[in-house]
Amino acid sequence: MTGEDVMGKEVKGNKKLNWPKPYFAVVFTAQRSLSGDDIYEITSDRMMDLAQQQPGFLGVESVRGDDGLGITVSYWRDRDAIRAWRENSEHLIAQEMGRQEFYQWYRVRIAEVTDDHAFFADTAI
Amino acid sequence: MTGEDVMGKEVKGNKKLNWPKPYFAVVFTAQRSLSGDDIYEITSDRMMDLAQQQPGFLGVESVRGDDGLGITVSYWRDRDAIRAWRENSEHLIAQEMGRQEFYQWYRVRIAEVTDDHAFFADTAI
Repeated sequence: MTGEDVMGKEVKGNKKLNWPKPYFAVVFTAQRSLSGDDIYEITSDRMMDLAQQQPGFLGVESVRGDDGLGITVSYWRDRDAIRAWRENSEHLIAQEMGRQEFYQWYRVRIAEVTDDHAFFADTAI
Repeated sequence: MTGEDVMGKEVKGNKKLNWPKPYFAVVFTAQRSLSGDDIYEITSDRMMDLAQQQPGFLGVESVRGDDGLGITVSYWRDRDAIRAWRENSEHLIAQEMGRQEFYQWYRVRIAEVTDDHAFFADTAI
């Protein structure tokens, strides 16, 4: 499973988001290094699965461009859920692998989402 | 200029963000349609330039994947700056073109960023 898959399912399946507001977002922007492709894919897919099993997880959107720049935005019910996920033991190992191997740099932002709106073309699924 | 260029310059040139907290983010997640490539590129580049000229603009990160899914996160000093940008006359026209032509769907979220942190590998530029 890739981030794109998660995104597609999540958004297309939920045109109306019934998420209690405010909810919270983690914006993870990262530049992949040129090494460790296989283990990166395995780790990334595992983290995507694991995140979705966490209490308070609402959804995720993830895109990576050809140049290795990626943005993943995950959505959570509250700040405690984000904290618990950040401190998840398996996730902590993945974070360390990210610093050692996967990323040239990354930036993490925590934000409170207060408004959202969406558009869907008539031709969209 | 592409969003990726903006991103690269913005982040690599500013390891420490001296942005007053809290600042605000607009998370724009969008699925491109298969039409209008040339006019889309022109419009997208123009909006990226124009956004940066707006009062209260702080920065932008933008990625689009091969499947046409994109995430653009723009950062702003306050909610008034976001409102003014949303109502910019040239931007309003681009938004309408987005609905008519460029996107199968999109979702816009407004969020207040309360925390950020970053990692840069020793080998990173």
